[in-house]
Amino acid sequence: MAQTQGRIICAGLGPGDPDLISVRSDRVIRSGRHIAYFRKAGRQGQARRIVEGMLAPGAVEHAMEYPVTTEIPFDSPDYNRALAEFYDDWAARLHRLVAAGEEVVVLCEGDPFFYGSFMHLYVRLKDLVPVEVIPGIPGMVGCWNATGVPITWGDDILTVLMGTLPEAELVRHMAGSEALAIMKTGRNLPRVRRALAAAGRLQDAWLIERGTMPGQRVAKLADVDAEDCPYFAIVLVHGHGRRPVVGAEE
Amino acid sequence: MAQTQGRIICAGLGPGDPDLISVRSDRVIRSGRHIAYFRKAGRQGQARRIVEGMLAPGAVEHAMEYPVTTEIPFDSPDYNRALAEFYDDWAARLHRLVAAGEEVVVLCEGDPFFYGSFMHLYVRLKDLVPVEVIPGIPGMVGCWNATGVPITWGDDILTVLMGTLPEAELVRHMAGSEALAIMKTGRNLPRVRRALAAAGRLQDAWLIERGTMPGQRVAKLADVDAEDCPYFAIVLVHGHGRRPVVGAEE
Repeated sequence: MAQTQGRIICAGLGPGDPDLISVRSDRVIRSGRHIAYFRKAGRQGQARRIVEGMLAPGAVEHAMEYPVTTEIPFDSPDYNRALAEFYDDWAARLHRLVAAGEEVVVLCEGDPFFYGSFMHLYVRLKDLVPVEVIPGIPGMVGCWNATGVPITWGDDILTVLMGTLPEAELVRHMAGSEALAIMKTGRNLPRVRRALAAAGRLQDAWLIERGTMPGQRVAKLADVDAEDCPYFAIVLVHGHGRRPVVGAEE
Repeated sequence: MAQTQGRIICAGLGPGDPDLISVRSDRVIRSGRHIAYFRKAGRQGQARRIVEGMLAPGAVEHAMEYPVTTEIPFDSPDYNRALAEFYDDWAARLHRLVAAGEEVVVLCEGDPFFYGSFMHLYVRLKDLVPVEVIPGIPGMVGCWNATGVPITWGDDILTVLMGTLPEAELVRHMAGSEALAIMKTGRNLPRVRRALAAAGRLQDAWLIERGTMPGQRVAKLADVDAEDCPYFAIVLVHGHGRRPVVGAEE
């Protein structure tokens, strides 16, 4: 079957350290004949960087470069339309490769089904061709590992928030959950910081930049310069357990 | 250093399929001389089952068997005390091995820092001996992968809840979050089901049992017999994205 019927395999890459890729993704990436990945135009791209040195000799690379975003606002209908055309175009190109009997490995940072870009190809292709998705360790898991402190205990609630959400909504969720993971920080970091302060959680918040990767930085958010808005960073607040086991916190 | 200084390595095992263990954990497990894992007395244990066939010849196994729980209620002070003594005892035993220069690999399902039992050893040992923790794919990630549908899109909020929480609190969080993962279901499943219904989310809920493992079951929760309370199951509700890309949902 593998000889004649093509398919798409999305390989979750995990948080960034190639040693944290799953055994199955590792095998698929090393043997892939066609390797596709998203990146910004002119950049190597995070996904491609993670697999540096792993690709088979002769592997054909398909760099799926996002449409340029400087001319049109990121949240405008025009940008959404350009992005939809971009996904349509790449779905069609990968479809043609699969129809010709090829197996295409699509790289995806973290876990493909957790805020992953791959899902835009997935919804376009899953009813047309065989698609296998290999889960990965989400980026936030690598980040809380980097802090050296468990993120959740006992009956803790964990809430995952985007820094793009309205401030009042951030505050409400930050106050109502023991553990927090806040993604898409970057230029939203000042709002995230204000919301954490309003919820009484700022002193417990950590900023993790480039978790599990070279240049990893782990800092108390309150100690980070307010002007410093790293793009590839996650904010975490650890839970402490609602029913801690006697002696466990010693 | 590795020859003379002992240490503890906690190897995250991921959701259950051994092929989803990270490359680093896989290597550590296959070469480990001392392999420790939690299990209920008289059972093989889920962690040990996952690594079946992977251990090195001559590896010494340390089955850390939880104190028997049938005589004393699970949430009583007596049980907490018995559990604390159990963790104290095993921390001391692993400490002695490490002091003698041994490297001990502790197996942990899912991700060790995400509701993992290992953290009870970790807090007791981390200031006494070198401890390395290798992250893993959390069980819930394997479960949402098993549904074949992305769990979060765009600005979706994901909330992770325990089925042990009070019903009113479950309802409030279920109503206020797009995507949901509910763990510790089992005998709490009737309450989880009532709370989902009260929050208007029951029709969108899935029950995933033994995700990524043999005997995996994926079902709409509303279709599951109310008497059927599988222990090793997670309930999921998928998000749909707050700012879906044009055309992406076609």
